[in-house]
Amino acid sequence: MSDLNTLLQRIQPADASARERAEARLDMLTKPPGSLGRLEHLVTDLAGISGEGLPRVNPPAVLVFAADHGVAEEGVSAFPQAVTAQMVTNFANGGAAINVFARQVDARLEVVDVGVVTPYGVPTGEGRGAIVVDRVRDGSGNIAREDAMTREQAVAALMVGSRAVDRAREAGCRCLILGEMGIANTTPSSALLAAFAGLEPEQVVGRGTGIDDAGLKHKREVIALALARGAGADDALALARGAGADDALDTLARLGGLEIVAMAGAYLAGAAARLPIVVDGFIATVAALAACRLCPAVRDYLVFGHQSQETGHRHALEALGGKPLLQLDLRLGEGSGAVLAYPLLDAACRMLAEMATFDDAGVAKGEEGNDGGHERAGQVQPGGSAAEKANSEASGSENTSTEKK
Amino acid sequence: MSDLNTLLQRIQPADASARERAEARLDMLTKPPGSLGRLEHLVTDLAGISGEGLPRVNPPAVLVFAADHGVAEEGVSAFPQAVTAQMVTNFANGGAAINVFARQVDARLEVVDVGVVTPYGVPTGEGRGAIVVDRVRDGSGNIAREDAMTREQAVAALMVGSRAVDRAREAGCRCLILGEMGIANTTPSSALLAAFAGLEPEQVVGRGTGIDDAGLKHKREVIALALARGAGADDALALARGAGADDALDTLARLGGLEIVAMAGAYLAGAAARLPIVVDGFIATVAALAACRLCPAVRDYLVFGHQSQETGHRHALEALGGKPLLQLDLRLGEGSGAVLAYPLLDAACRMLAEMATFDDAGVAKGEEGNDGGHERAGQVQPGGSAAEKANSEASGSENTSTEKK
Repeated sequence: MSDLNTLLQRIQPADASARERAEARLDMLTKPPGSLGRLEHLVTDLAGISGEGLPRVNPPAVLVFAADHGVAEEGVSAFPQAVTAQMVTNFANGGAAINVFARQVDARLEVVDVGVVTPYGVPTGEGRGAIVVDRVRDGSGNIAREDAMTREQAVAALMVGSRAVDRAREAGCRCLILGEMGIANTTPSSALLAAFAGLEPEQVVGRGTGIDDAGLKHKREVIALALARGAGADDALALARGAGADDALDTLARLGGLEIVAMAGAYLAGAAARLPIVVDGFIATVAALAACRLCPAVRDYLVFGHQSQETGHRHALEALGGKPLLQLDLRLGEGSGAVLAYPLLDAACRMLAEMATFDDAGVAKGEEGNDGGHERAGQVQPGGSAAEKANSEASGSENTSTEKK
Repeated sequence: MSDLNTLLQRIQPADASARERAEARLDMLTKPPGSLGRLEHLVTDLAGISGEGLPRVNPPAVLVFAADHGVAEEGVSAFPQAVTAQMVTNFANGGAAINVFARQVDARLEVVDVGVVTPYGVPTGEGRGAIVVDRVRDGSGNIAREDAMTREQAVAALMVGSRAVDRAREAGCRCLILGEMGIANTTPSSALLAAFAGLEPEQVVGRGTGIDDAGLKHKREVIALALARGAGADDALALARGAGADDALDTLARLGGLEIVAMAGAYLAGAAARLPIVVDGFIATVAALAACRLCPAVRDYLVFGHQSQETGHRHALEALGGKPLLQLDLRLGEGSGAVLAYPLLDAACRMLAEMATFDDAGVAKGEEGNDGGHERAGQVQPGGSAAEKANSEASGSENTSTEKK
């Protein structure tokens, strides 16, 4: 617990002064105020997160946590537990969706085995990714009948996530993208959401990929069993009302999964390191909610990447007040929605750093109001000083696109 | 007209067999069917566009067309006409938003002066972009009182757009992103939308950046004048019902703007060249609508990038049946929303080309249905063959992200 307490104490709220510096610079850029919409909110959030008036998110790290779930034996998934291990091999081979999208954005991808039950092969050789083995136990307990893990194991799983963030930081990464793999892991995620947000099983369980009525009913029953086994409704409400970190840890141990708890630990460590963390779909959002229950200041460090189709995701987002950047009807997991949103974070940072400002160019802003035409806030005088200065300040590409083939 | 007729005759519908090949491969990838949502529709569209079962969009070209509008003298914009020229200089200096976003995706950026009235300076030297001067006339006529241009000039402006696409193709670009700059250009765009879609001025004119009630009323009156000057309501309805290319050309000449017509020409040429064209906001969508009125098959080649806040954009999208990929509350123009969507096109292509397939790996697909767990459609057996083959087929990055810093 001492490691966890140290970690929790390192988490501070976002930096309001850095946010203000970013906002001030935004108003000076050669564009109408507010005309870049959500990108403007995004870059001021990133400034507050990093404590820097000109934040950067490049290079990003993708951390995929994998583990198995005892509750799979209740038949809540159509797929055998072995698929978790098989997908770990697929990750190592570079053949899964998250591999492809991580390569596209030059992300450092790391897959962490927190407790995969089935033995898996990891090919070696050029172009093969290593799997980081940092196991807490062989899969979690069947939450319909027993706790997922002990409190000590939950702390250990949180520290698995924290160590993964440490490695990403040491590699120079400035943005975290968290993903997961674990057959049956929407079941513990639904149970955790119900517990943390004070919701009923029918509110948190979705149809996934074409679940039928009988399957949906069974999954709800399993989750109701899990919820009834530990805390009663009063405890759930207490958690929803913001009961302390100690209660949240109990809930994670009782209802969680190893990779979900590891993700929660990564959110904590990312926030402690003042790194932005892009939140993926349902499971990732539930893990973020758990981290915020452990330490509410984590919320400042979250950027919501993608709105999933999974029913419970909307509730999890509401509990966190999150509005995702993308709505692409994905339902894959692995961090795929979050990594697809990453270029928007990068664009927002580049915009602030690289666009010419009115001050740089020494020109006045245009008149305000009464504009029905092409919304152009200001006038830019001929002469190269604005962009010259902006480019020399630029943190990103050295190239001007007109020079490119 | 003969050049235009030749161009129109080159435009063919999308390739259904390439689309089918892409769909067949999608079903073989190591993910649940349909779990990548809109990316899956996107890549099959791109296959149909390119005629290739494994389409590519990299590298992209950003083409920004700039011109002035006589209707600016009616006071429909809060900004003086000189700002068009000043922004051209800003583009040349690399300091505008579109420069930043184009650099991020390694796009070839070209700015085409189709008829900017005010003289502008273009700095030379390293890192400075050239402006392509391909002018039709010194700004368009004031559409409240006279035609924007002659039919011959409209054809000439269409061919400006076509030549820009030719240059992008010769540079090896596989995707077009069109943008514009022209003070007051929402006014002709609104008039064109009303004419092409059979709408009233109040349906097509928005408040832009904080236009007040008096400004909105005035802009509507100007557009009503422009619409009344030429075709009556019957003609507008005939156009909305799909009157021929000849009528569409008349409408463009009467109500258009030089950069809007040039964009329409670029859509035509992009479709003729079987290139995907990412559609930006209101003005770009109206230009796309004009191109579709000239040749309905252009519709197959459009990918909608961003949903603008401008009131008329929704109507323009409805007229084309378009659903944008992004909703980021942008209202900047320049092609900024389209270029921000480009990484999603690239991701969709990489997904199809680089993900491991079940066939590659020699494994069976997972069982269907009744899944409430982590939606994982299939099983991947240990062993490197799937991703190894997929990687060797990959058209994109040579690197595996795990090797990256």
